[in-house]
Amino acid sequence: MNLTEMTRAWIARVEDKLDAVLPPPTEAPRSLHEAMRYSVLGGGKRIRPLLVYAAGVSLGANENQLDAPAAAIELMHAFSLVHDDLPAMDDDDLRRGRPTTHKAFDEATAILAADALQPLAFKVLADDAALNVEADTRLRMISLLASACGSLGMTGGQSIDLKSEGQRLDAAELEHMYKLKTGCLLEVSVLSGACAAQADESTLVLLREYADKLGLAFQICDDILDIEGATEVIGKTQGADVFRNKATWPALFGLDEAKRKSAELLDEALHAIEPLGGQADPLRAIGTYIVNRDR
Amino acid sequence: MNLTEMTRAWIARVEDKLDAVLPPPTEAPRSLHEAMRYSVLGGGKRIRPLLVYAAGVSLGANENQLDAPAAAIELMHAFSLVHDDLPAMDDDDLRRGRPTTHKAFDEATAILAADALQPLAFKVLADDAALNVEADTRLRMISLLASACGSLGMTGGQSIDLKSEGQRLDAAELEHMYKLKTGCLLEVSVLSGACAAQADESTLVLLREYADKLGLAFQICDDILDIEGATEVIGKTQGADVFRNKATWPALFGLDEAKRKSAELLDEALHAIEPLGGQADPLRAIGTYIVNRDR
Repeated sequence: MNLTEMTRAWIARVEDKLDAVLPPPTEAPRSLHEAMRYSVLGGGKRIRPLLVYAAGVSLGANENQLDAPAAAIELMHAFSLVHDDLPAMDDDDLRRGRPTTHKAFDEATAILAADALQPLAFKVLADDAALNVEADTRLRMISLLASACGSLGMTGGQSIDLKSEGQRLDAAELEHMYKLKTGCLLEVSVLSGACAAQADESTLVLLREYADKLGLAFQICDDILDIEGATEVIGKTQGADVFRNKATWPALFGLDEAKRKSAELLDEALHAIEPLGGQADPLRAIGTYIVNRDR
Repeated sequence: MNLTEMTRAWIARVEDKLDAVLPPPTEAPRSLHEAMRYSVLGGGKRIRPLLVYAAGVSLGANENQLDAPAAAIELMHAFSLVHDDLPAMDDDDLRRGRPTTHKAFDEATAILAADALQPLAFKVLADDAALNVEADTRLRMISLLASACGSLGMTGGQSIDLKSEGQRLDAAELEHMYKLKTGCLLEVSVLSGACAAQADESTLVLLREYADKLGLAFQICDDILDIEGATEVIGKTQGADVFRNKATWPALFGLDEAKRKSAELLDEALHAIEPLGGQADPLRAIGTYIVNRDR
């Protein structure tokens, strides 16, 4: 299977799973369920699920086991996007080429729809039969996801991001913000796939290093796309970060240095998983795809 | 130990636990952690933790095991209060006699602080050492809590509540809304305490019935307090529900009928746990306390 077939197949898998775990739009409260589905099923690159599948398959899990963690992490990602787009936060009108959830519905419905995605993610990890791992492994996935989304992870990163508008962060502060806002959830994607495959602790150490480098490369790539990408490709208002005077890698170091750094970090990520040998090729392919997408 | 000593001791326990599991206010991101602590540690009746302790102790768990589920459920309750108070929702300025979180901080910080309380609740259930139960029991608590907080539980109830403003609900619709908005989390409080005590399935059936009746009685009592209670006692703006023309039991049936119904439901709740005998006295005492508080 080549990369295009692989990503297409995995994206189809996780979208089927998301469709299955989300309550049907006909079930009451209907507007809430419609908004949840709108927020989750409206396209998206599904980068975190791809990492779950790539890590899991690389280490010997079967794909049926990986649908649940892939879907759970994407639910959590969708939750964060809906809240980040709210008027009190980034105040974005466009996401994935469509109106943001609070524009398509209303602000209260958007807040609540996202609020309901969080527990659904944990419920999928706790209950899904196809995941088929020991209870201890489920608890580890739940604990990892909870940490990645809390005040010392994604939500903390968004808080720092909001406070940093118009401020001059140095490289270390920016890297820390990226780690929390994006890196933690990418890392838990890789680790959850590995946990489903019963990976040993020394493998998890390599994967943490891989995810750490890849996460920063991914975020810098996102910054570059914000400047260079056309609105129709990235699906959100182009140059929005620049307009808001947000701290970004290109703003701090220039576009060329950002591109160089992103490529260097990808190399380091791939280097980290060299000891895993040929079995880790899916992780190499998906990692490279994530950092080189759309440019 | 009499009721006052019991409630005081349990409230002190859960407040110690909440203080311990919440990140310190000195840890970055500071404003986020300050807002989380402000939202959780600012008083409150701690009714859900009292139910966790009462159910657990009635069925033979030790109090050390119950601190984690009591804290987890209170974190989830605090999360819901912060979001319910937002301008896009109930737009309340006062909660527990103090400014609401978005008034004391700002709207973005309030949204994020509450967002970070949710995963913390699940993390406590997944990780807390003192809980000291099998992994399967932790997963059950996590699954119960996730269901109680999602679109078919608390968050769904808030969605229905918002849509019902100015509308005439009938008794069945109102009861359904109460069940989702308040009842589900009260039920999971009772069941989590029981799970910690390894209660058997037939006991859980009795406790569901108890919690179901008690939950509705509690919500009707809340409605009555909204009309009769002084602002300084209930800690929020008195008559706020009436002002917003919200569907409530007294609005539908009058104050006298609401009081009669609330008392009847308490009787039914107590009747449901009769088979448990004298060991369930803490549940009887706390149930009665919850429905008869402050009036």
